[in-house]
Amino acid sequence: MKVNNKNYRALWMEGESLMMIEQNKLPFSFEIHECKTLEDTCYAIKTMITRGAGSIGGAGGYGMLQAIYKASDKNLYSDLEKAKELIDATRPTAVNLSYATTRVLKASKVSRELAISEAHAVAIECAEHGRLIGVHGNVLINDGFTIETHCNAGWLALMDYGSALAPIYAAHDAGKSIHVLVDETRPRSQGARLTAWELNQHGVPHTIIPDNAGAHYMSKGKVDIMIVGADRIATNGDTANKIGTLEKAIAAKYYGVPFYVAAPSSTIDLNTPDGTDIPIEERGVEEVLYATGTDRNGELHTILTASPGSEAKNPAFDVTPASLIAGIITEKGIVKPDTESIKEIF
Amino acid sequence: MKVNNKNYRALWMEGESLMMIEQNKLPFSFEIHECKTLEDTCYAIKTMITRGAGSIGGAGGYGMLQAIYKASDKNLYSDLEKAKELIDATRPTAVNLSYATTRVLKASKVSRELAISEAHAVAIECAEHGRLIGVHGNVLINDGFTIETHCNAGWLALMDYGSALAPIYAAHDAGKSIHVLVDETRPRSQGARLTAWELNQHGVPHTIIPDNAGAHYMSKGKVDIMIVGADRIATNGDTANKIGTLEKAIAAKYYGVPFYVAAPSSTIDLNTPDGTDIPIEERGVEEVLYATGTDRNGELHTILTASPGSEAKNPAFDVTPASLIAGIITEKGIVKPDTESIKEIF
Repeated sequence: MKVNNKNYRALWMEGESLMMIEQNKLPFSFEIHECKTLEDTCYAIKTMITRGAGSIGGAGGYGMLQAIYKASDKNLYSDLEKAKELIDATRPTAVNLSYATTRVLKASKVSRELAISEAHAVAIECAEHGRLIGVHGNVLINDGFTIETHCNAGWLALMDYGSALAPIYAAHDAGKSIHVLVDETRPRSQGARLTAWELNQHGVPHTIIPDNAGAHYMSKGKVDIMIVGADRIATNGDTANKIGTLEKAIAAKYYGVPFYVAAPSSTIDLNTPDGTDIPIEERGVEEVLYATGTDRNGELHTILTASPGSEAKNPAFDVTPASLIAGIITEKGIVKPDTESIKEIF
Repeated sequence: MKVNNKNYRALWMEGESLMMIEQNKLPFSFEIHECKTLEDTCYAIKTMITRGAGSIGGAGGYGMLQAIYKASDKNLYSDLEKAKELIDATRPTAVNLSYATTRVLKASKVSRELAISEAHAVAIECAEHGRLIGVHGNVLINDGFTIETHCNAGWLALMDYGSALAPIYAAHDAGKSIHVLVDETRPRSQGARLTAWELNQHGVPHTIIPDNAGAHYMSKGKVDIMIVGADRIATNGDTANKIGTLEKAIAAKYYGVPFYVAAPSSTIDLNTPDGTDIPIEERGVEEVLYATGTDRNGELHTILTASPGSEAKNPAFDVTPASLIAGIITEKGIVKPDTESIKEIF
């Protein structure tokens, strides 16, 4: 995707360094962050300098690559086992991390060269899957549609193209007149900060709305379809995604708005039969109690926006039951959210 | 209610001035705002220096009182008609404004003295109704309950005691062990700023959660009951309240969590048969795109927290259909949300 008319992906290798767009500073400044070591990469995933299921999968693969560069032939497998453990522990909900690290670890059993190419393949495939999700999802979007989305499941989150945003970009590029309702997505505001920024860069008409306003617009018949991303999809279609997704899915069901999940098949975890056991990351409460942004001079501030002395909770994800989901848009096509249909695409 | 061990109501008269707690500055500073004239009072309602259905009703009554003080006997009625028009136009959704101004205007037909006492009665009755809502609502709260609430429907919003918070205060004061989940209530954060502050002052255990997390906690069985306030209740029980209420009510229905509305009967509008025609106030988009709070030195900042150049929308209320509401807790008891039951209490 283009930023100020230059092509970017969410992250890429330069020598032994993993370079990434600094997503915590967007939209206030556009900076490239360098991770020189595996430890730098783990820190960047944990603190969400890079974020989004696909992008952290890509970063996980490249973190393994950094470990390969450091390891002797003799210790390659055991060093990569340790690296995998470090990487998988950075964020507990998304399955893409272990998907990426497992692929590279397995390849290292064959050869160092195959492991290196596998690390690159994870990231390259992810971007290509985004493009294909766009192709498949585009058919769901009619001319004149208003599409609601939650969080950021755009190219920043999926190396390139995106998951939930890929069909939106495809529909816009095909000349359809569409409008996107962007949930601001508290507490980290990935919608207001990142999705709005992406759509702005690409010229897609959009409106930021408070998360609280979704059901209101659905009740007025103003939402034609809702598309969200996913951090982990269980084999039965239950889907873990950014906190608030569940609430939207329930409201969409209530008002008969088709609710789609868009994700590469790497987000589907065949080891998770249903949503019950998906671990939900609890993040620091400062994300709820404080806000970060710029004043009129462009200076960045972090301010307390809540009553001092009150406790808070910050679950980062929730699980939407398959029964609320109309379909899962993958790189292989649109799949029904049930165990039989999902297993068929593997 | 007590602030730093001193008794306060949300607003009160001192001579010809209407004094009020400055709610826009809470919780960062506790200040009293003085409205010397009717115009000052209208400005304070519009800019939400005072807010909440009951408190703006009280302010509306006292605004009429300020007009009475200015009017000659000859022009009393026509001056009050003009004052009513000014006051009613400040906020379009809540019915309490016109409820208050109509009462005072009608009384002025009898005498100046009756109009004056009617203006005071509006505010005094509102506080007493809050106390009674607490008595009736308390029976719904069992020892050990977790209660979710949205926005601020506490004593700041209802002169004293509150509507949604009145049963919570009553249960806490009766020695029940309860916990309150406080929706932060974007975009103005009345939950995180005001409800959390009120509960803190009163020593009620509570946790601030992002609006997005409500359904997640309901799905885990962690919400026993949800109680919210109301800005206008139609005769059939459809209820206009702070944006996001609708989404919670749908999620509560989905998970079988009893969802109650608490409001004085003055919030019920017998001229509104159902929710379809309740006007929804659209507020400035800066409330969505900017956040206000204090830095570590206690200095207040307003910062941009969204992508620059994106449009936004800011509907302040939504309408929850009666079918999602378990009951309406009024000063006269708990009423079923249907036209027949509601008409019976008048």
